[in-house]
Amino acid sequence: MAKKIRFLMIVLVNSAICLSIALPAFAQDATPASNAVAINTVWTLVAAFLVFFMQAGFAMVEAGFTRAKNAANIMMKNLMDFSVGSIAFWLVGFGVMFGTSAFGLFGKDGFLLSAANPSSADGLWQFAYWMFQVVFAATAATIVSGAMAERTKFSGYLIYSVFISALIYPVVGHWIWGGGWLASKGMIDFAGSTVVHSVGGWAALAGAIILGPRLGKYNKDRSSNAIPGHNIPLAALGVFILWFGWFGFNSGSTTSGTNLSIATIAVTTNLAAAAGAIMAMFAAWFRFGKPDTSMALNGALAGLVAITAPCAAVSPLSAIIIGAIAGVIVVSSVEFIDKVLHIDDPVGAISVHGVCGAWGTLSVGLFAEAAYGKSSGIGAVNGLFFGGGLSQFFTQLIGVVSVFIWVFGTATLLFYVVKKTVGLRVSDEEQLKGLDIGEHGMEAYAGFQIFTTE
Amino acid sequence: MAKKIRFLMIVLVNSAICLSIALPAFAQDATPASNAVAINTVWTLVAAFLVFFMQAGFAMVEAGFTRAKNAANIMMKNLMDFSVGSIAFWLVGFGVMFGTSAFGLFGKDGFLLSAANPSSADGLWQFAYWMFQVVFAATAATIVSGAMAERTKFSGYLIYSVFISALIYPVVGHWIWGGGWLASKGMIDFAGSTVVHSVGGWAALAGAIILGPRLGKYNKDRSSNAIPGHNIPLAALGVFILWFGWFGFNSGSTTSGTNLSIATIAVTTNLAAAAGAIMAMFAAWFRFGKPDTSMALNGALAGLVAITAPCAAVSPLSAIIIGAIAGVIVVSSVEFIDKVLHIDDPVGAISVHGVCGAWGTLSVGLFAEAAYGKSSGIGAVNGLFFGGGLSQFFTQLIGVVSVFIWVFGTATLLFYVVKKTVGLRVSDEEQLKGLDIGEHGMEAYAGFQIFTTE
Amino acid sequence: MAKKIRFLMIVLVNSAICLSIALPAFAQDATPASNAVAINTVWTLVAAFLVFFMQAGFAMVEAGFTRAKNAANIMMKNLMDFSVGSIAFWLVGFGVMFGTSAFGLFGKDGFLLSAANPSSADGLWQFAYWMFQVVFAATAATIVSGAMAERTKFSGYLIYSVFISALIYPVVGHWIWGGGWLASKGMIDFAGSTVVHSVGGWAALAGAIILGPRLGKYNKDRSSNAIPGHNIPLAALGVFILWFGWFGFNSGSTTSGTNLSIATIAVTTNLAAAAGAIMAMFAAWFRFGKPDTSMALNGALAGLVAITAPCAAVSPLSAIIIGAIAGVIVVSSVEFIDKVLHIDDPVGAISVHGVCGAWGTLSVGLFAEAAYGKSSGIGAVNGLFFGGGLSQFFTQLIGVVSVFIWVFGTATLLFYVVKKTVGLRVSDEEQLKGLDIGEHGMEAYAGFQIFTTE
Repeated sequence: MAKKIRFLMIVLVNSAICLSIALPAFAQDATPASNAVAINTVWTLVAAFLVFFMQAGFAMVEAGFTRAKNAANIMMKNLMDFSVGSIAFWLVGFGVMFGTSAFGLFGKDGFLLSAANPSSADGLWQFAYWMFQVVFAATAATIVSGAMAERTKFSGYLIYSVFISALIYPVVGHWIWGGGWLASKGMIDFAGSTVVHSVGGWAALAGAIILGPRLGKYNKDRSSNAIPGHNIPLAALGVFILWFGWFGFNSGSTTSGTNLSIATIAVTTNLAAAAGAIMAMFAAWFRFGKPDTSMALNGALAGLVAITAPCAAVSPLSAIIIGAIAGVIVVSSVEFIDKVLHIDDPVGAISVHGVCGAWGTLSVGLFAEAAYGKSSGIGAVNGLFFGGGLSQFFTQLIGVVSVFIWVFGTATLLFYVVKKTVGLRVSDEEQLKGLDIGEHGMEAYAGFQIFTTE
Repeated sequence: MAKKIRFLMIVLVNSAICLSIALPAFAQDATPASNAVAINTVWTLVAAFLVFFMQAGFAMVEAGFTRAKNAANIMMKNLMDFSVGSIAFWLVGFGVMFGTSAFGLFGKDGFLLSAANPSSADGLWQFAYWMFQVVFAATAATIVSGAMAERTKFSGYLIYSVFISALIYPVVGHWIWGGGWLASKGMIDFAGSTVVHSVGGWAALAGAIILGPRLGKYNKDRSSNAIPGHNIPLAALGVFILWFGWFGFNSGSTTSGTNLSIATIAVTTNLAAAAGAIMAMFAAWFRFGKPDTSMALNGALAGLVAITAPCAAVSPLSAIIIGAIAGVIVVSSVEFIDKVLHIDDPVGAISVHGVCGAWGTLSVGLFAEAAYGKSSGIGAVNGLFFGGGLSQFFTQLIGVVSVFIWVFGTATLLFYVVKKTVGLRVSDEEQLKGLDIGEHGMEAYAGFQIFTTE
Repeated sequence: MAKKIRFLMIVLVNSAICLSIALPAFAQDATPASNAVAINTVWTLVAAFLVFFMQAGFAMVEAGFTRAKNAANIMMKNLMDFSVGSIAFWLVGFGVMFGTSAFGLFGKDGFLLSAANPSSADGLWQFAYWMFQVVFAATAATIVSGAMAERTKFSGYLIYSVFISALIYPVVGHWIWGGGWLASKGMIDFAGSTVVHSVGGWAALAGAIILGPRLGKYNKDRSSNAIPGHNIPLAALGVFILWFGWFGFNSGSTTSGTNLSIATIAVTTNLAAAAGAIMAMFAAWFRFGKPDTSMALNGALAGLVAITAPCAAVSPLSAIIIGAIAGVIVVSSVEFIDKVLHIDDPVGAISVHGVCGAWGTLSVGLFAEAAYGKSSGIGAVNGLFFGGGLSQFFTQLIGVVSVFIWVFGTATLLFYVVKKTVGLRVSDEEQLKGLDIGEHGMEAYAGFQIFTTE
């Protein structure tokens, strides 16, 4: 009886289902080659979805490390930089990044996904590749949000987000990933310590300087006040989401699942993050007397940012060292930027993404081992510590410095223009009351008793 | 007997599979065909996991947009509609949806996963396919929860959840996806704007009407009071989770990773969501003077719901237009349902899922392009704007109307019966005190100072 | 024109991209064999990422079920057990678990990922396999955290986490998964009901006993006070994340995507979780008069833990029964451990992971069906209810008891040594004030009005 039902079901039900398992066209020409393309497409898309989810991570980290009165504004910014960025990257950014190179400086075609079409394997691959790239572009844009939190005018935020996703980020992307002049020089930034994170970090630096600190952040004697975040579990959830998504960010950057170095990359990514968290914890413990949770969370992110460039070029042990150093750097950098430079960066974005991004990019020149780079396809490069001399390091350094100059320069101009036109900073009254009410006419936590300070 | 059959099938069919924990033997006798099946199974399962995770998204959105005093009840409802729905769909729903068709109206066999077995590739595929389908069934059921939040009796909730997962949803699924009469007519609803979202939305409409509004929602002069949600970051996290899961929902609906249009679908899904969020933001800005975060979040969902039917049939540009229109529709619809119809839908589920689901389904008849539908396997259909005339649009319209009649009719009957038997609405005293204490004897946020209003 | 741009883009841009789609080495020898390896690697990594994400789930569940004043401490513990555990498992644990066996008791080589290398497919597979294993090791460690929440000294926590990840867990892993003596006996624990969950649960039991209860938990008359958790939505989010990740945990344990029983495993996993949630809800409803949300959430976890061992060996119907029984067990066990044994386990970790892990492991001996085990590759075993007699059950029982003795014994010693050296418990003053301030010098929810009790 069960057998008969089984047989009937297989004949009757599966016949319909089979149509949706694999289209006739694909079933017919399901050659090994097309399987490889399918594996690469599946891998690239799954990785893209994971990187998309990092948007939630950035939103939670930024909100968790800031005050309750601005949390709805932060959600809106994080939703909108991705939304606006998606459209801008479709219209302009992808072409600037991957179009035919003009003098190695920027791409000049491929706008509006013009290279993609649904009728060929190559054309379909363009959709997959664009999907993977758009989530990277949005990551660069959203990093800026954290450093400028709790005082930025929402309309100004919208405008500069467009320009970061459409121009500032894609130009750097073209230089390093789009066949531009830094690619020609042999710079290695596998998944974007510089392309994504430093771009976000240096734009954040420009923004935080032009915007000025939050009310109550600095005293008249130039000493700094801590403004504690309102929701550490939310921030921690954000870090876990980011770590999770980062596996897609780094391993996915092969854009190939048949490239088995995806496994190596996952391992180096994980170990660097772990080492970063541990060392940031100890650094904070040593420096402040107690192991601060926020610092350890930022340490994990620091390790992740640092390993992003070298993840496909270094051994697990080197990954641990790179992450550990990033964990120490981030604690020092956060303190330096706050207490020496007096730049108010509520979530530490400049240190995590800008400074550790630079460190990670440089670390390729120190720790790269030919066997790893050969396996992943970035080339058989040895860094200083593995007999390769200093040439790769200097190439990396040129990249780091050039990108800093481009991003800091253009972002400064951008924020200055926004400031002088639509405005960049909310009024002091609004800042005191909170941007949720001021910008969006709502509260993040209706019903909860909250003390709004400063 | 059963043992013998099993033994034979294992020997004949499964010799490769049983050796397959990455053993050398398997690598040797893996044919391209079995690799394609593996790719499709991996893709379908990963997509199913992503769609499962949408349950968390729905829970967070519903809780975030409602009051703290009902948050534990909302968690329980969302946990239980999936749990109860899983069992009901296993027992009954899957058979009703995909069993042998009785008059094109419903399936009449395939209950208890009877077509699945572990001893053949076809039988194993049934497990994968069921896994993908059960998370869709649960999505339809959980949509209803939002519109009926903050006043529904938990025992009544449990009962109607079973019927939605076991009967109301699967019948529609059979009509459109199970070879039923709407499938025969050529209706296109690739991933379920109608099958899943409108079903949820129209059941929500019936439920919200029969249940009546929350206390304090409407004044004697028929004007409406806003009842703000208690946790916007939670709601935003929910939307990010939903967007993330929606990539599985739409791209996964190929149930094939060798169908490379999964890439196109991811792109159209993403762009529609982005456009929906942006346009809802501007619509709310224009309408209410400020860019409301909740509306923008619902706009992203509106774009996602709308693109769900046409995602495999339209170009990226069309996806942006479809999503943008959904973003405007959702703002108008939320206001219309609240202020004109005086139906209390705390999270906007009727507008997001019902109305935008209908819009998305119809949009196939306007924006479909043959090249996209050909590539994805749904057929080379052109909509009105691409030279295809109005025939597809009318087919879509017949589907939208028929499903509305079926769902609204049966759901009304269902809620009416529940109301007259176990009861559908909690007492006013319980509603004031909160359903967490009334239904579950607990608090969601023990220790926090919360003002319970209304 | 558009055609020309397309053509140019394909020629110029894709030429660069192609290099990253598939490495020359792979493109050349893209045989079916290498595709199968790629599918297995992609599947194993994606599953590993999902299991990693469970860390977020554990953190949210633990924090949600405890008090606000300890939430930042809980985040730190969960971040650090994974970080410290990753390094410890890389240094020592993986070798102890999978190295060449010494007397069937522990592995004696393979430390520091010595078997992995980037230059061969086998060497690359070691990275993928390690990645999958490290997230399991961290899961075992993090389970302990919940039972010892709200009173454990952070420095002590760090130390014992290292030993669990480096020694206690890997020894059990070697016995059952690494070719050790229990593997030789034919014990079946497919994804780790015993290897992971019971190990965590029994270590938690030892820890909770040595640590003693939280202040205010037990009265002088030995009656027990409920200490309600501060954030049920957070706990529910955690359970959804765990359920989501568990698909990777169980289905991923094939470490092969070409093993099509991944589909069966996903189905049994899902149904057991659903049944566990439903039955725990009814058990709590029957026992306490109302359907407690926390109990239902723990019921889902109980079902998941129980199905982890048998997921690849039983039918969907059996999975439902196994999960349903786990749902009842967990409610009884939580009450028994609290009210009879007077052991304070704030989140129910001992019951969920220890007791239900034991139940799940034993259930293999009752419900296993040869067709399922043969399909998944664990062997054609029939349990008692399917004509297999009691032999498998007794093998399972030997495993359960042996692991209890090893873990409870070594963990007791470990906690005792930590207690006598760095200390295991914070002072009463610190416990009253909260561990966030005491251990980390910070608050989890700055700005919120919170009543700290006990």
